[in-house]
Amino acid sequence: MSDVEKKSGRERGEEWWQTGIIEMSPGVIRLRGYEIQDLIGRVSFPAVIWLMLRGELPSEDQAALLGIALGAAVDHGPQAPSIAIARMAATCGVGINSAMASAINVLGDVHGGAGEQALSFYGDIALAIDGGTALGEAVSARLDRFFAGEKGYVPGLGHRFHPVDPRAPRLLELTREFAARGVINGRFADIAEAIEAEVARRKGKRIPLNIDGATAVIYGELGFPPPLTRGLFVLSRSVGILAHAWEQSQQSERNKGPLPREWLWAYTGTPPRPFPGEGEAGE
Amino acid sequence: MSDVEKKSGRERGEEWWQTGIIEMSPGVIRLRGYEIQDLIGRVSFPAVIWLMLRGELPSEDQAALLGIALGAAVDHGPQAPSIAIARMAATCGVGINSAMASAINVLGDVHGGAGEQALSFYGDIALAIDGGTALGEAVSARLDRFFAGEKGYVPGLGHRFHPVDPRAPRLLELTREFAARGVINGRFADIAEAIEAEVARRKGKRIPLNIDGATAVIYGELGFPPPLTRGLFVLSRSVGILAHAWEQSQQSERNKGPLPREWLWAYTGTPPRPFPGEGEAGE
Amino acid sequence: MSDVEKKSGRERGEEWWQTGIIEMSPGVIRLRGYEIQDLIGRVSFPAVIWLMLRGELPSEDQAALLGIALGAAVDHGPQAPSIAIARMAATCGVGINSAMASAINVLGDVHGGAGEQALSFYGDIALAIDGGTALGEAVSARLDRFFAGEKGYVPGLGHRFHPVDPRAPRLLELTREFAARGVINGRFADIAEAIEAEVARRKGKRIPLNIDGATAVIYGELGFPPPLTRGLFVLSRSVGILAHAWEQSQQSERNKGPLPREWLWAYTGTPPRPFPGEGEAGE
Amino acid sequence: MSDVEKKSGRERGEEWWQTGIIEMSPGVIRLRGYEIQDLIGRVSFPAVIWLMLRGELPSEDQAALLGIALGAAVDHGPQAPSIAIARMAATCGVGINSAMASAINVLGDVHGGAGEQALSFYGDIALAIDGGTALGEAVSARLDRFFAGEKGYVPGLGHRFHPVDPRAPRLLELTREFAARGVINGRFADIAEAIEAEVARRKGKRIPLNIDGATAVIYGELGFPPPLTRGLFVLSRSVGILAHAWEQSQQSERNKGPLPREWLWAYTGTPPRPFPGEGEAGE
Repeated sequence: MSDVEKKSGRERGEEWWQTGIIEMSPGVIRLRGYEIQDLIGRVSFPAVIWLMLRGELPSEDQAALLGIALGAAVDHGPQAPSIAIARMAATCGVGINSAMASAINVLGDVHGGAGEQALSFYGDIALAIDGGTALGEAVSARLDRFFAGEKGYVPGLGHRFHPVDPRAPRLLELTREFAARGVINGRFADIAEAIEAEVARRKGKRIPLNIDGATAVIYGELGFPPPLTRGLFVLSRSVGILAHAWEQSQQSERNKGPLPREWLWAYTGTPPRPFPGEGEAGE
Repeated sequence: MSDVEKKSGRERGEEWWQTGIIEMSPGVIRLRGYEIQDLIGRVSFPAVIWLMLRGELPSEDQAALLGIALGAAVDHGPQAPSIAIARMAATCGVGINSAMASAINVLGDVHGGAGEQALSFYGDIALAIDGGTALGEAVSARLDRFFAGEKGYVPGLGHRFHPVDPRAPRLLELTREFAARGVINGRFADIAEAIEAEVARRKGKRIPLNIDGATAVIYGELGFPPPLTRGLFVLSRSVGILAHAWEQSQQSERNKGPLPREWLWAYTGTPPRPFPGEGEAGE
Repeated sequence: MSDVEKKSGRERGEEWWQTGIIEMSPGVIRLRGYEIQDLIGRVSFPAVIWLMLRGELPSEDQAALLGIALGAAVDHGPQAPSIAIARMAATCGVGINSAMASAINVLGDVHGGAGEQALSFYGDIALAIDGGTALGEAVSARLDRFFAGEKGYVPGLGHRFHPVDPRAPRLLELTREFAARGVINGRFADIAEAIEAEVARRKGKRIPLNIDGATAVIYGELGFPPPLTRGLFVLSRSVGILAHAWEQSQQSERNKGPLPREWLWAYTGTPPRPFPGEGEAGE
Repeated sequence: MSDVEKKSGRERGEEWWQTGIIEMSPGVIRLRGYEIQDLIGRVSFPAVIWLMLRGELPSEDQAALLGIALGAAVDHGPQAPSIAIARMAATCGVGINSAMASAINVLGDVHGGAGEQALSFYGDIALAIDGGTALGEAVSARLDRFFAGEKGYVPGLGHRFHPVDPRAPRLLELTREFAARGVINGRFADIAEAIEAEVARRKGKRIPLNIDGATAVIYGELGFPPPLTRGLFVLSRSVGILAHAWEQSQQSERNKGPLPREWLWAYTGTPPRPFPGEGEAGE
C-alpha cells in the first residue's frame, strides 16, 4: 500500500489544513509553541499581535513601539469611507461584526494601501544602501525612477487635508527615541526624512511625511514586510470603525444615507423618454 | 470494524459537505438532477434562479413573474446606504466584487428585511384564512395585534419619500393579470389590499403599499418562504449595486466620503482638554 | 457672489453624488430615462441588468444571450471557496445577506477574475485584427507574448477538474446560433476557438475552453468591457451562493468548519516550549 | 428666514454627520478631546481602544486587564469558520483587508455572540442583586428561568472540544488578582462562579466556564455593555484572522476549498433526470 493511500482519510483531511500558528488538543491551546495560559497576563496585547504574526515574542520595547503605531491610526473621522460605511451599516439592521466587515473591506489599495507602498519604497532604497549606495544617492535614484515612470504622489508624503499631519512628527520623534535606546536602528527614519528633504528640494516646497509614511517607518524598523503593513492598519483602524459603529448604533437613525435625508443626488443621464414601441429596442 | 470506522476517511470528509443542489464528476455538472448543458439555452435566468432555490423548474409564466419582481427593485439611488456604499467602496482600491460585498452586506433587517416582514405578516393572515376566518376579520385581528404589541410601521405599507411608490401599483396590476390567467391564485394580493384598506379606514388616510409589500405579494404567490424574500432582494439590488460601483469606478475620485470633500462633520463630544498628568487618569 | 458660493449648500451636497443611472422625485423613479412602471412587466430581468449597466435597452435576443451566460455559471459546488464560505457563514448566526457578502467578497482576481483576463486576452487579438492582422497571426503573436512573459495558464483554457467543461461547448454552440441569426457577429467565438486550436498545436494536446473562456466570448460579443465581466460573474454566482446559504440555513449545524468536527488540522510550527524567563524575550 | 432655512447648506450637511469621538481641523486631530499627539506614546494600545469606546482614559490597570482579555481570544484554529474563511479568502486573489472582512463578517450571533449572551445573563443576575436578592438566590432564579424557557447551553459554560478551556481558569485567576488590588470589584467573577457551581449541582457534573464566559466576566467588571463585548471579540479575533490570512498568502494554493482538492461533497438530491419536454415543466 502506497504512502498516499495509507494517508488517505483523516490524515489527508487534516493535512489539507496546516498551520504553524496554533496547535490544539482537548484542553490544550498553544500559540507558536507557547501554552496559551502561559501567555495570558504575561504579554501585552501588542506583544500577542507580534507573536501571532512573527512567530516569536518581541521585547517589551518592540511591543511598545508596535502599540504606538497601532494606536496612532485608529480614526480619521466620518469623511473617511471606512468610518462612514461603518456608521451607515450600523443603521441597516446588521450585527456590529458585519458593520465592521463592510468597513474593513474597503481598506484597499487606495484607502489602506499607502503604508504598504511607502514601506516598499523605503525598502527599495534600503536595498540600494545595503548594496553600497549612499543614502542621498539611493533616495535620489529612487525618486528619479518615481517621477519618470510612476504617477501620483510620492508614497508617504503629503495630505489632502492636513498641512502637517500632527501624528507624523510625533511618531518620528518617538522612533528616534527608540533608536537612541537601541531598540531599532533608525535607518527607515533616515530614509523617510531624506525622501522628504529631497522632494522639498526638487519641488521648492516641503510636502511633509504623513501618517502612512510615519507608521511605515516604524513597521519597517520593527521588521514587518510591506504587505503586513496593510494588515496592521486594518487592526488599527478597526478600533475607530468599532467606536463609530457603536456610537451610531446608540442613535435612532434607520438606513442612514450619505446626505441629509431631504436632499437628493444630481442626475446626469439620459432625459426622460418613453418606453420604445415593440421592435424599436436595441442599442 | 464498525460502520463509523469504515467510513472514516475520504467518505467521512465528503459527507461533511452535503448538498441536494449540485452533483459533479469529471465532465459532468448537474443542477437539481438536470445536466447543466440541458439547461443552458433552454431556461431563462429567472428560471435557473427558481430551480436552484426550489429544486424544480418553474413554468414559463412563473419564471416571468419572478423576473418581474427581481427587475423592479434593482435600484433606489445613492441615498440608499447599499448604493452609496458600493460607490464609496469603488473609490478605495478594491475589486468590483468587494465593492459589491460591502454593499450587499448592509441589506440587513432594516434595509433589506422589509419584504420578509411583509410576507410573514401576510402569511399569518393566510393561515387564519386557511383556518376558516374571513379575510376582513383575519386582517383586522392581525392589525389589532400589531397596533397593540408591535411598534413601527405596518410591514409593506408607506414610504418616507414617495407619496405613492410607482412600482407598487404596477406590480399589483401585473399580479392580478397573472392570477386571472391562473398562474397564481391571487390570495396574497387580496390580503395586501385588504391590509391597505383597513389601515386607511383606521387612520383616516391611505398609506399605500410600497415596493417591499408588492414584491412580497409576488414572492408569496409564487410560494417562496419569507426568509428567501431577503435573498431574492439581494439578487435584485445587486444589479443596481453593480451598476453604481461600475459607474463610480469610471470616474477619478479617490476615497470618496459621504459629504463634499471640503466639508466636515459636526463634533459633539468633550471639548479640547490637556492630557492628564501622571496618576490622574482613570474613569 | 460667485457661482461656487451660490452653489454652496444643498446644491453642492447634491452634486457630490452624481449618477446617470437613476433619477428620482417624490412618486417618480426613472432608470436611464425610463419610468420604472414602463419597464416593469415589459422587459426581462436580464434586459434590466443590461439597461442598468449599459444605459440602453437590449434587443430581446441580446437579453436572451446575456441571460444564457448568467445562468450557466451559477454554481460549481462546495469545493469552490465562494460556495463553501456561503454555507459556513450561514451557520454562524448572520443574515442571509451577510452570508452572501462574505462569499461574493472572495470572487477576486483568482476566483472571479478569469473571465476578465480571458476577455482582455481576446480583446488584444481583436485589436490586432482591427489593425489588419489576420486571425491566425494575431492569435499566434499574442500567444508568443504570453508564453514569453506571462506565467500560469492561458486565460479561458483548461480546468483542474473537468477534462471538458460541459458548459463551454454548449455555450459556444449557442453563440454560433446567435451569430448565424445576426444578433452578434461571432468574432470572439472565432478568436477563442483559434486560441484553443493554436495551443493544442503547440502543446500537442487539446486544452479545451472552460466556462470563463466561454462566458467571456459571450460578454465580448455583447459588447461588455472586460472588468464588467467580473461583475456579471458575481451576479451569476450569487444565485448559487444564495441557494447554498439557504439550504445550509435549513440544517442545524452551528459554526460549521471546513473539516468534520472530530478532525483537526496539522500543526507545523515551533514545538511546545516554556514561556521565557524575564528578560529573555526578543526575536 | 427660519433657523432651518438659515442652516440649509454646508451646516446642514455637516450636522448630518455628527460624532463625539473625533474632531478635526487642518493640522489638528483630537480624539475624545485629546490632541492625538498628546496620546501617541503616552497611552497603550488597549488604552486607546478604551478611550475610543468609552470616552475617557482608563487607568493603567484597567487598560492592562482589557489587553489581557483581548489577547486571550485571538485564535482557535482553522476549524473555526472565521479562521478557515480568512485562509480560503486569501487564496482567491483579494487583498488582506478583504480576506479579513469576509472572516470578521461571520462573527455573528452564533460564532461571535456568546460573550454578549453571557454578559447579559450575568447582568440580569447583577440587577437582581442590586435589588436586594442574595447571589445564590439570584443565580438560581435566573437558571430556573433559563431552563424553563430558553433553549441550548447556559451562556458562558461548556465547550464542544475542551473538557476545560485552558484560557478560562487563567483569566478568572487574573480577574481575582485585579479585584484584590481594587481595580475592579469582582462581582461578575462571583456571579460566573456561582452559575458554574449551581449548574454543576443541578446536572451532577461540572460544565466549566469557557472563554466567552471568562472574557464576559472581565468586560463586565470593566463596565462594558454586552453588545460591545462582541465588538471587542472582533478586535481580538482579528489578530488571528490576520495571522492566518497572512500565513496562507505566503503559500501557493489557489482557490482553496474546504476539503482536499481530490475529494468531493456528497450529493443528496434528485437523481439525474432528463430535461422535460416542452410544456411539461412546472412545479
